[in-house]
Amino acid sequence: MGITYEISVPSSRKEEMIDITGQIRELVKRSGIRDGICVVHAMHTTAGILVNENYDPSLKEDMLDFLSGISKGKWRHDLEDNNASAHLKSLIVGQSQSIPIKSGNLMLGTWQGICIAEFDGPKLRKVSVSIV
Amino acid sequence: MGITYEISVPSSRKEEMIDITGQIRELVKRSGIRDGICVVHAMHTTAGILVNENYDPSLKEDMLDFLSGISKGKWRHDLEDNNASAHLKSLIVGQSQSIPIKSGNLMLGTWQGICIAEFDGPKLRKVSVSIV
Amino acid sequence: MGITYEISVPSSRKEEMIDITGQIRELVKRSGIRDGICVVHAMHTTAGILVNENYDPSLKEDMLDFLSGISKGKWRHDLEDNNASAHLKSLIVGQSQSIPIKSGNLMLGTWQGICIAEFDGPKLRKVSVSIV
Repeated sequence: MGITYEISVPSSRKEEMIDITGQIRELVKRSGIRDGICVVHAMHTTAGILVNENYDPSLKEDMLDFLSGISKGKWRHDLEDNNASAHLKSLIVGQSQSIPIKSGNLMLGTWQGICIAEFDGPKLRKVSVSIV
Repeated sequence: MGITYEISVPSSRKEEMIDITGQIRELVKRSGIRDGICVVHAMHTTAGILVNENYDPSLKEDMLDFLSGISKGKWRHDLEDNNASAHLKSLIVGQSQSIPIKSGNLMLGTWQGICIAEFDGPKLRKVSVSIV
Repeated sequence: MGITYEISVPSSRKEEMIDITGQIRELVKRSGIRDGICVVHAMHTTAGILVNENYDPSLKEDMLDFLSGISKGKWRHDLEDNNASAHLKSLIVGQSQSIPIKSGNLMLGTWQGICIAEFDGPKLRKVSVSIV
């Protein structure tokens, strides 16, 4: 009744929003599930999953700038591993998104796309996708 | 085993939090599902879904003011479409919420309600609701 | 096909991040569900559920400081009940997290843990956990 996949997504910059909508639609089709839910989860603590506009590329830059602005500061964790703000950004964005499925299609709006947000790249990121 | 609905919610102001708890409870009842999950997803990129207190109306004003305060700035996307801060607010709030169902009831706490947050209204908004 | 549990988690301070990963793994095992989704939902409006690093304890302090910094302000709701910033923090963090399950295991990354974030304690908090 449910099936779980794992996909790998390489990032090529320190910070980046990578559209994975096509890959997720493909997995929904492969699952054969007609009505249900798709959960997309980034298996990391310095990356996140978001659903937002995937049309104007400058919006992705705005989002990254916005997150950098509010997460600036002197953080204890930077003494351990110099990426505290990447953890804070991922706290705001969240590690997962859940999207309804109807008649075999993701119920995304016209302008909506699913992105993995990289905050501490470049890295090879793992995303788990569960369809029930 | 699962059923997906779509509801329309009109907003009447530029920014607004509209309680839809009653409509979601009605869909859970109609689905006949006793134990499971309800996913509520706003099919837009300048609106969000949140679960928070629905008792003191002034808290909704505080939330809108808070989001306006932190998303202020000069954004590239405003040159394309003058609503960058609405996208940023929806990034913070998130497009969906998932709520457990037990014995046919949404497992919300005493003070919890489900709202659609409008950040670029007035508009007619679509919400997809999946119950599995 | 699905089962919903409720657990109680006591907090002992005003603000705190309490790791509940072990308890959630136990419920997934008890459910007997091999492939699916686990939704963890805080039944409160001044607490949240997050997935982040559970290794360096100073990161939890950074997250609490970060949330306190951005939610500072004069809020209307403080006249009614002096905890507006706790509501705003819970708005940012979110009330629930959804995690895929594969072969009976939560698909969390190496560094990921599930925490309940207390913003207005000490209190006894209820968490609903649905596994489908």
